Amino acid sequence: MKKALAIDVGGTKIYSAVINENGEIVSEIEKNPTPETFEEIKSLFELIIKKHEREIDVVAFSTCGAVNNQNDGILGSTGNIAKDYPKMPFKSLSSKPVFVENDANCAAWAEHIIGASKGCANSVMLTLGTGVGGGIIVNNKLLKGKNGAAGEMHFKMYCDKRRKCTCGAWDCFEIYASGKGLKITAEEISKNPNVTTYDVIEGVKSNDELMIKIFNRWQDDITAGIVGLANIFDPDCFVLSGSMAAFVDANKIEQNVNNQIVTTPTKVFKAKAGNYSGMIGAALLALQLGD
Amino acid sequence: MKKALAIDVGGTKIYSAVINENGEIVSEIEKNPTPETFEEIKSLFELIIKKHEREIDVVAFSTCGAVNNQNDGILGSTGNIAKDYPKMPFKSLSSKPVFVENDANCAAWAEHIIGASKGCANSVMLTLGTGVGGGIIVNNKLLKGKNGAAGEMHFKMYCDKRRKCTCGAWDCFEIYASGKGLKITAEEISKNPNVTTYDVIEGVKSNDELMIKIFNRWQDDITAGIVGLANIFDPDCFVLSGSMAAFVDANKIEQNVNNQIVTTPTKVFKAKAGNYSGMIGAALLALQLGD
Repeated sequence: MKKALAIDVGGTKIYSAVINENGEIVSEIEKNPTPETFEEIKSLFELIIKKHEREIDVVAFSTCGAVNNQNDGILGSTGNIAKDYPKMPFKSLSSKPVFVENDANCAAWAEHIIGASKGCANSVMLTLGTGVGGGIIVNNKLLKGKNGAAGEMHFKMYCDKRRKCTCGAWDCFEIYASGKGLKITAEEISKNPNVTTYDVIEGVKSNDELMIKIFNRWQDDITAGIVGLANIFDPDCFVLSGSMAAFVDANKIEQNVNNQIVTTPTKVFKAKAGNYSGMIGAALLALQLGD
Repeated sequence: MKKALAIDVGGTKIYSAVINENGEIVSEIEKNPTPETFEEIKSLFELIIKKHEREIDVVAFSTCGAVNNQNDGILGSTGNIAKDYPKMPFKSLSSKPVFVENDANCAAWAEHIIGASKGCANSVMLTLGTGVGGGIIVNNKLLKGKNGAAGEMHFKMYCDKRRKCTCGAWDCFEIYASGKGLKITAEEISKNPNVTTYDVIEGVKSNDELMIKIFNRWQDDITAGIVGLANIFDPDCFVLSGSMAAFVDANKIEQNVNNQIVTTPTKVFKAKAGNYSGMIGAALLALQLGD
């Protein structure tokens, strides 16, 4: 069976593991802090690859940042990682084929092949973490757009300039539906600038009325975004992943979405492919392409 | 050269014409008011088809309402036409093959093959009329979704219940970016319940400050919606069609969109395939499938 060396590159950590065609992790999972400079990141990649190169068929990167349609390089800037990281010459890092894809797209692909959206030709994955990532599958293929940058969940929730989004524009879905969005919603409703997302989650558990109100407002914002996407894509399902997805009530969201859409009923699931879905998806994509 | 009998079915008018594989109209264009009842509509279809059946290879319907992925029937209700119209047995209307597609999808396809988005693998068409229609092309194919209902432009512009949309939900793009949306914006800003879209358009021409303010607000709402769609699809271009598209400044919208998106720069064009793009797109789709 063919194997990929999967490397997941985030702003704070770099994970790596060997993964087979079934999406099974068949080595130790290695975890490194993301180095600060381009050269250090490149050296770490080379070190990881050197260690596994002989036993694998392909190197598969799941990375932050939009990835081009050639799956060999990054488009534009990526936020929380060395500024010149997008210049990484991925192809030259190994004598084996190298495949690169955006981390949210990789996770969506893992869900599509072995996870919550398995068997669904059309799905939308939303990664609810510090920010919001998106991976969209149309007719069993990743939606990439003209340059590979598609799937960004920066559509407006308001058009009267309330919250500045991390992207620089105003009132994107990300700045409402993310963990950061929940904190801002909590600050606004509680009038307490020190309230945390942890306070909200714990407050809901202990039936604190104010915290429930804040949580529901956040969940309604997620629902509102899904309604729009359901009308645009008429997908079989939505998959909610990421650290913040653990707290939402997927059934309630599904019900509220289906009460509002003009297209046909959809499903809302929580992700099933696990914490390493980025690596698994990258490996599955890379091994499929190698066929 | 193969030919299709194209029939465009709207809430007020039914157009028909014979169209060849190049998208050229090769007969008189017939225009009938849309009859009120299911039986009358069916009889009119039969009459039109009987007249042309011997000279054509396929019957191609461009219709209001979402059309299924088998391209032979309508999903759910359609608004301004006989309530049981969705039950129309299209396939049985002719001894020739019958093909059915949503009118906005047909118009988007005409633009894709012979119009403004020709050569673009990924595009989004917005039909700005009384309402807003949408037709999305991903990798040279119409985006249909699981049941064929995709491309509905009902995503939220606000999440605090300001305007009820024709679809029953609150604050959809349609109720801001349509002609109806412009009228509501004009009423809100001018505090005059009798102001019309005509007043706004004429006021802009004569440099009326208030009307310019109203028009710009409307155009900014269109821009806001396009920003979200550009981030979701990373398309080569947007195409603006429909009666209200004549008035917008596509270059200004393009510039403002590209200043706000996180994906890669896109284009905003006005439609080029003309008033009969629905019929032309239906014919081109039907003749292509007949190959």
